[in-house]
Amino acid sequence: MLLNVLEVRAKTNETMNEVSVSNFEEGRLFDFGITLLSEEDIIAFATAFDPLDFHIDKEKAKKSYFKGIIASGAHMFTKVHREKWIPLFKDTVICGIEINNWKFLKPIYPSQPIHGVVIITSIKRNPEHRHVVINWRYEFKNTENEMVQCMEMLIMHKID
Amino acid sequence: MLLNVLEVRAKTNETMNEVSVSNFEEGRLFDFGITLLSEEDIIAFATAFDPLDFHIDKEKAKKSYFKGIIASGAHMFTKVHREKWIPLFKDTVICGIEINNWKFLKPIYPSQPIHGVVIITSIKRNPEHRHVVINWRYEFKNTENEMVQCMEMLIMHKID
Repeated sequence: MLLNVLEVRAKTNETMNEVSVSNFEEGRLFDFGITLLSEEDIIAFATAFDPLDFHIDKEKAKKSYFKGIIASGAHMFTKVHREKWIPLFKDTVICGIEINNWKFLKPIYPSQPIHGVVIITSIKRNPEHRHVVINWRYEFKNTENEMVQCMEMLIMHKID
Repeated sequence: MLLNVLEVRAKTNETMNEVSVSNFEEGRLFDFGITLLSEEDIIAFATAFDPLDFHIDKEKAKKSYFKGIIASGAHMFTKVHREKWIPLFKDTVICGIEINNWKFLKPIYPSQPIHGVVIITSIKRNPEHRHVVINWRYEFKNTENEMVQCMEMLIMHKID
């Protein structure tokens, strides 16, 4: 069940027709491995989208609640989703429906290793309309295996 | 109650000490006016973060469910939040806590006028710790006054 992303990618490239979303089951997990955000990337992302002092200003960040620069809440998900999930599933997407329970539980610091997985927590099949609606739950944990962030996205996918 | 963003900005610049988050009340609405996303911006944003065919490829988008390019789900909120909410409230933010009920109800097409507001739907005051936790509900509507997108974000703010 626990595949690293390279295995997932290899498998997907080889057998995407077999491993189509129509065969997915609840509980299936995709392991997206470890992701780090550099301080430079954190500052660039937050400058563009979320320019709070504790994301972009080292000196002010030191005096903040977090005692240093931390990543914008959306940054880790945005990067992992773009780099890991999108290449696997983008051609199956009809539309996004909802995002829920996106919880920012602990700060993410520059160069902190964060382990990301996504788990299928529900599938509603609608074969008449040749689609399925999947609830994908992202979980991001630190090296102590503590959850630092989670979120759920409900996506409608084509089936063959 | 219904202020346009220029009025909000002017008022905030003049009287931010008086109009601090500690004085906010449930039901308060900030009107962020009309926002349009150009086709060029839609393609650039989605290429970076959400490169699905119907966000970035005109020809493939024509054949999609939406019959043309549509904006990535996160794009409108990201732009309005960055340009309108952040300048008003960024210095009060301690941290983001959660995002919920982010619903992508209707597609947003290039150059479609979308009216955005944000409403305070709950405030939990914690004067001992000199903070408040505010639930901010964004609503985006089309020119027919139909909701095209909504979302709620729970933010912890400093109080004076």
